[in-house]
Amino acid sequence: MSPTSSGRPPDDSALDPSPGTIREMGMEAVEWVAAYHGSIRDRPVAPRTSAAALKDLLAEPLPVQGRDFSHLLDVFRDVIVPGSRHNGHPRFFGYVSAPGTAVASVADFLASALNANLPAWRSAPAPTELEHVAIDWIKEALGCVPTAGGLFMSGGSMANFAALAAARHRHCGDVVASHGVSAHPRPLRIYASQEAHHSIHKAAALLGIGRGNVREVALDARFRMDVNDLVRKIEEDRAAGADPFCVVASAGTVGTGAVDPLTEIAATAKRYGLWMHVDACYGGFARLAPSARPLFDGLSEADSIALDPHKWLYLPADCGCLIYRDPEAARAAFALGADYTRVMQTEPAEAFTFWDYGPDLSRRFRALKVWMVLAHAGSQAVGEAIESNLDCARYLAELVDASDDFELLSPVELSIFCFRYLPPAARTGPGSGADAQELDRVNQRILVSLQESGSSYLSNATINGRFALRGCVLNYRTTRKDMEILLDDVRRAAEQVPGATD
Amino acid sequence: MSPTSSGRPPDDSALDPSPGTIREMGMEAVEWVAAYHGSIRDRPVAPRTSAAALKDLLAEPLPVQGRDFSHLLDVFRDVIVPGSRHNGHPRFFGYVSAPGTAVASVADFLASALNANLPAWRSAPAPTELEHVAIDWIKEALGCVPTAGGLFMSGGSMANFAALAAARHRHCGDVVASHGVSAHPRPLRIYASQEAHHSIHKAAALLGIGRGNVREVALDARFRMDVNDLVRKIEEDRAAGADPFCVVASAGTVGTGAVDPLTEIAATAKRYGLWMHVDACYGGFARLAPSARPLFDGLSEADSIALDPHKWLYLPADCGCLIYRDPEAARAAFALGADYTRVMQTEPAEAFTFWDYGPDLSRRFRALKVWMVLAHAGSQAVGEAIESNLDCARYLAELVDASDDFELLSPVELSIFCFRYLPPAARTGPGSGADAQELDRVNQRILVSLQESGSSYLSNATINGRFALRGCVLNYRTTRKDMEILLDDVRRAAEQVPGATD
Repeated sequence: MSPTSSGRPPDDSALDPSPGTIREMGMEAVEWVAAYHGSIRDRPVAPRTSAAALKDLLAEPLPVQGRDFSHLLDVFRDVIVPGSRHNGHPRFFGYVSAPGTAVASVADFLASALNANLPAWRSAPAPTELEHVAIDWIKEALGCVPTAGGLFMSGGSMANFAALAAARHRHCGDVVASHGVSAHPRPLRIYASQEAHHSIHKAAALLGIGRGNVREVALDARFRMDVNDLVRKIEEDRAAGADPFCVVASAGTVGTGAVDPLTEIAATAKRYGLWMHVDACYGGFARLAPSARPLFDGLSEADSIALDPHKWLYLPADCGCLIYRDPEAARAAFALGADYTRVMQTEPAEAFTFWDYGPDLSRRFRALKVWMVLAHAGSQAVGEAIESNLDCARYLAELVDASDDFELLSPVELSIFCFRYLPPAARTGPGSGADAQELDRVNQRILVSLQESGSSYLSNATINGRFALRGCVLNYRTTRKDMEILLDDVRRAAEQVPGATD
Repeated sequence: MSPTSSGRPPDDSALDPSPGTIREMGMEAVEWVAAYHGSIRDRPVAPRTSAAALKDLLAEPLPVQGRDFSHLLDVFRDVIVPGSRHNGHPRFFGYVSAPGTAVASVADFLASALNANLPAWRSAPAPTELEHVAIDWIKEALGCVPTAGGLFMSGGSMANFAALAAARHRHCGDVVASHGVSAHPRPLRIYASQEAHHSIHKAAALLGIGRGNVREVALDARFRMDVNDLVRKIEEDRAAGADPFCVVASAGTVGTGAVDPLTEIAATAKRYGLWMHVDACYGGFARLAPSARPLFDGLSEADSIALDPHKWLYLPADCGCLIYRDPEAARAAFALGADYTRVMQTEPAEAFTFWDYGPDLSRRFRALKVWMVLAHAGSQAVGEAIESNLDCARYLAELVDASDDFELLSPVELSIFCFRYLPPAARTGPGSGADAQELDRVNQRILVSLQESGSSYLSNATINGRFALRGCVLNYRTTRKDMEILLDDVRRAAEQVPGATD
């Protein structure tokens, strides 16, 4: 018996299977993963099912006795997979959703088997260093200053939340952390455009600042923040005794893909002493594509940047990321002290704790999949895939412009496109007598019919008060041909809607 | 060309590999996972390394060109794994840390390959229904009312945070969500024992309530909340014009494993109209072990329960969970409205959205691993493993009691044990002339030496002001024999500390 062993041979139970059993389970899973990736183009994008039907197949009391893995894999293959939307399908254009990448799912497998937990360096030395490397790569992709720092978290909502928490702490100091927002003498104000992501309002509510203290800044013609209106609102609020402390710029709005004028917003933030946060969850990584790069000038001046590697780095959910320009400014917002968080290491890099920079204590080894995708593909191939996504969206806009049965409702800034179908009576141009509400109604029905078709999937947006069919290209599998098929699919869906085609 | 296909054959690039390439990568990963599980007992628990050495091996600029998967797997095997702490080692007793389970890592692989994203039913019908099933199983394990509901999130810190957000919303209504904490007329107060997890204080700071508004309730002799002191503090605060709204009970403190008297706390909460939240992240699942079950009487009366399936359900990080007794009371705290969160389904189960019950929008398919571990092992085997963990901790306490060179510093309530080593001069009982600070110093050095040994790993706690060696048994691999080896390892570590053994 070796002195470092408990002397018990590996077991072969469900909780502690032998290497041979693990190999069998793993092989079965690999076969499914390989086959799934090979067949994803030919699956219906979204399932036609119901909650009741699925409940019938899945609901049961907690089983007392265990079951074979093969049986569970059958349920996964036969019920879960056909009952899922396939976000990796080349014509899934809904929301802002990545396909995932095979190598990242392998990385998640390895991360879960190693089961590293990353609250701090001492708990996971090499995984922590790898997270630093992955964050450095992201900083490089975004053009951040070398002294910036950051960490991964569950997603963009939490990254936006944590950024606002850090911004508040720098502004208010420890009095608010100790005694609450009521101890701050004046109402705090956050500024974000009317198209900012709703997680900003949710974060303001949760932080005890209040949704009503998020001032919605007007838009310019391209749905970007109007900086003159930003200045006007800051001045108004100051004059009224409120306390502006943070401006949130969007680098890729979820509605139309607009990138706010970052350089001007940075100058305004500097002038008024505001924390500048950039919600770049959707758009940030498009800086790797040459044609989009100029849009991100000014990004490196932000105090914080929220990103979703599980969007345009093509990673599976979940992987959000927050970059701080000055990590020390953020530290105090999250720091805590307790025995189980007492760090005995004295070398600064070894005393490093992630929990000082974000809301979580236990943290999954998300860095492994970020590192693996970037190292396996290389930044050039990722940039080319993003460039191709941008090209697909621009091509769709060209097809729409050249058609008489569609019209664009907003400019294509990144890879999001908003358009609508025009029934024959509406095709003669403005003032054609087409009823606006009728157009909304027709397009809403087309969307439902399209989603049921299984061939293409769009979501929706409201553009200048009108219902838009909205898509986002965020998949290395999507080609120009898919954009042509999409428009054909929308036409076919229109044929299902009474009054849409005649 | 099939009408549902883009007509392009599967690619074989790093982002979009062919099924054959995926099979090769997957097989290599499976081989590592199987070998890792087979060798985990014989690895040093914790690495002896430095940040500088790891940085040398890992840091480099963002690579422009990609690299073979085999090369990346080599870095994982040769640098990351040896530079990691092995939380699945049978003598890793630090903090509250699960080993992970092979079938759960396979589930994470499948979840990442399918890349389901679970903001709402419409985005992932079958995965959403499976999350409901897994939550129902957890409710059954805890004895919750059938009308309770819940969801998975990143971990216990977020579950505690979300519970306090829901508690505040029920108490304050939408005025705080809209206008911030300052709009509430009186200072809000939360009650938690002195041994409550620090994430409660962190949540209070982030929520804008303030750490200082968490009142620390005194302990009884078993380190449980003193309910008389709770009542006293509530009365005091009310008399002083403050506004008590929430009491947080611990079901398994991280320091000593104490379970607060839940039934009495529930009665007190009811009497004063407080939301009762139970932080059961560590202990909750011990209700599956017959010998611990009575400790959890009263749990089902809680308004919310925070749990960590990535603790005593032996899952890999991350998987936190929050159960609400009345989900509708929680809903309004998180609800938001935007186009991309507009739900068109009309059947209630199909209009269901997770984002109304927690902080996240995108959500990983965590339910798959919970469901797979419970369905594969069955509740009986999980309960037996937990029972065995409890037995190991009690056995350690017996060994300590029977020795003359160790003493227990707190009672063993669940699977946590706190003790210290006694140098010869301190072994003659109380008043032996042993200097308390000297004992702290010696045990602190023993801990460092033990952690460096690679054979066993403890963390630390402060018990009645004194430094304790602290361990937590949370691993189906741990046996009574490991507890004996642990004490031998501590003795060997003491021999390395000047003055400890003579």
